[in-house]
Amino acid sequence: MDFSATRALFDLPDGICYLDGNSLGPQPRAAASAAARALGEWQGQLIGGWNGAGWMDLPVALGAAIAPLIGAAPDTVVVGETLSIRVHQALMAALDLRPERTEIVTDSGNFPSDIYIAAEIARRRGLTLRVVAPDAVETALGPQTAVLMLTEVDYRTARRHDMARLSARAHEVGALALWDLAHSAGAVPLDLAGAGADFAVGCTYKYLNGGPGSPAFLHAAPGLIEAVTPALPGWLGHAAPFGFDMDYAPAPGVARMRIGTPPVLQMAALQGALTVWKGLSMTEVFATAQGLAQRLIDGVAARAPALRLASPEDPARRGSHLAFAHPEAQAIMRAFIARGLVGDFRAPDIVRLALTPLYIGPADIDRALDIIAEVMTSRAWEDPAFAASAGPVT
Amino acid sequence: MDFSATRALFDLPDGICYLDGNSLGPQPRAAASAAARALGEWQGQLIGGWNGAGWMDLPVALGAAIAPLIGAAPDTVVVGETLSIRVHQALMAALDLRPERTEIVTDSGNFPSDIYIAAEIARRRGLTLRVVAPDAVETALGPQTAVLMLTEVDYRTARRHDMARLSARAHEVGALALWDLAHSAGAVPLDLAGAGADFAVGCTYKYLNGGPGSPAFLHAAPGLIEAVTPALPGWLGHAAPFGFDMDYAPAPGVARMRIGTPPVLQMAALQGALTVWKGLSMTEVFATAQGLAQRLIDGVAARAPALRLASPEDPARRGSHLAFAHPEAQAIMRAFIARGLVGDFRAPDIVRLALTPLYIGPADIDRALDIIAEVMTSRAWEDPAFAASAGPVT
Repeated sequence: MDFSATRALFDLPDGICYLDGNSLGPQPRAAASAAARALGEWQGQLIGGWNGAGWMDLPVALGAAIAPLIGAAPDTVVVGETLSIRVHQALMAALDLRPERTEIVTDSGNFPSDIYIAAEIARRRGLTLRVVAPDAVETALGPQTAVLMLTEVDYRTARRHDMARLSARAHEVGALALWDLAHSAGAVPLDLAGAGADFAVGCTYKYLNGGPGSPAFLHAAPGLIEAVTPALPGWLGHAAPFGFDMDYAPAPGVARMRIGTPPVLQMAALQGALTVWKGLSMTEVFATAQGLAQRLIDGVAARAPALRLASPEDPARRGSHLAFAHPEAQAIMRAFIARGLVGDFRAPDIVRLALTPLYIGPADIDRALDIIAEVMTSRAWEDPAFAASAGPVT
Repeated sequence: MDFSATRALFDLPDGICYLDGNSLGPQPRAAASAAARALGEWQGQLIGGWNGAGWMDLPVALGAAIAPLIGAAPDTVVVGETLSIRVHQALMAALDLRPERTEIVTDSGNFPSDIYIAAEIARRRGLTLRVVAPDAVETALGPQTAVLMLTEVDYRTARRHDMARLSARAHEVGALALWDLAHSAGAVPLDLAGAGADFAVGCTYKYLNGGPGSPAFLHAAPGLIEAVTPALPGWLGHAAPFGFDMDYAPAPGVARMRIGTPPVLQMAALQGALTVWKGLSMTEVFATAQGLAQRLIDGVAARAPALRLASPEDPARRGSHLAFAHPEAQAIMRAFIARGLVGDFRAPDIVRLALTPLYIGPADIDRALDIIAEVMTSRAWEDPAFAASAGPVT
């Protein structure tokens, strides 16, 4: 990787050491220019932009752009809506394909919102949602399991599941595998096709840098999608949206998972943001990130040992952020932020720091370590300004 | 209304007579500047923008800004997601509140996408979806009706339902009333509270000028919402989104209908767009629109009588666009567009032209009439370039 080249593609504010790209990626210059271009299209082309500027095709075009980053075929991914909606669509579809089965299996490392959606679906369909420990997933699978639904990379600890093995285990018992890639896409090498993922969903405002509220994506294995009757049949998932038929007929392939009118400004920003991946190998990006991670792990161990590594030590078993545990994690993160080191806090005791090698290099890690060491040595977090009552830390 | 003042708030392209504001509103200058501001917030504040720039509150703040335009209390409206999702949420909520009933009643004037969502819900819940003629709605209601679901203004003819009377009739039989305001909000005076609407949904890229793919809104009557268990429980509808509890607990009030992470660029544009309504009365806006409509009706009758008015003649019974029927409507609209008059075509035979008095004045109508008269007199639409095979007309 040519760090100076990729770093130049981002417009990072001065004076900030930004290790929070797993929460909201910084602004690619191409995202800002693409959003500005879309504003101009709206001004100049008005309604004609839907065809003339290609707005109507954005959900499919963006899916094709994301596909190689997650190891999927170009025509198996569609973009739009929010991640909760994508989880709902994929889970409903998977359950419909296993109508005789009674259980959804997930784990306690899943993002709570995925659990909320699944729990409500289970309640309404009269199914059981089993939430087991991450290492108990395999033994929880059985002939009653309809769907195994997991987030590949834990949003707190970065613990990474073995997608290929767990998908295979799900298939062995006749279940389908649904993967949430919120903390995976743009962070770790993925091979959805090879790993046997039946459905996958993910978000584009973290490692894919699409901007705040950038839309979600959904992948469906090509062999499955033609049998899916969408539970949320929106007009743009219709085979002929502008025929205005009174009866729904699904579009071919994954396009049936389109729902509403695409948010063009947001999608344009994402389209620009995705250009930064041109010519990059996810394997190389991940390897570089793990080099940065090791530099951070070693530095913290040497200079701030009170911060305990809460992520797996083996790079092959984790994503692209690191979690450090400390009882005063929230106040500590506030003290970091006050000094220009931006990461985030996750309850109850986790400091998260992301390694994003397109725009974070070894010098940034060294600067972060100086701040970490200074805060931990001086116990700066004990300043009342950083107490829990001081308001939210995102 | 001060036309020159409101007209100056929009950045319309030169040489276009834009009578398509019911499909995609043109760009308010404040929308472009607000979107640019949000891009700057993302660049400069990064993750801090969620709290520091107020991004997290946008769904509620935008709801409060739309509320007075639709005659609702500020804390009963929330913005985000797409209209199909909002229809799903509102219909599921209404059905949950009438669990013993077996029917959804709607009409053939409803937007097909609303029907798709309702039909799939009915199929999955084992209910009957009755699609009756618009004038048969009242007699279709009965003790079996759970929900009356209607679009107030027909997207083709602009025929407007009597919301107060039909909501009252629904209530008389013990049903709830759900209104789609896609072609109403920003077009006609509304009094949701007074009209007894239990739920309402709508779109913001038509008369509200939020830009392509601007998010949808949902209104719920305050007396009902606390009893609603959301069918799509997203993390931002949780009482404590950043507590990351494994169990869902709905936020108080309509905020429980929030789902996913808000699309900030799109919402910023909408926030800017909504400033154009400051100081305007919807009653006056509507009266002005109807003056323009009459000018157009009279001119077409005099100069292009082959175009038959397909909208109600009584302004009180229609929205803010006009439909004219002609067997060659599609080719005719193409000939209009080629001359700079932008409206749209709806199958099979409707030319739609919208009256939007914030940026369209009598001189625009006169110019439109000159183009209409020229095309209809010369039969310009017979040019093969305008034939149906020439591609889509949006």
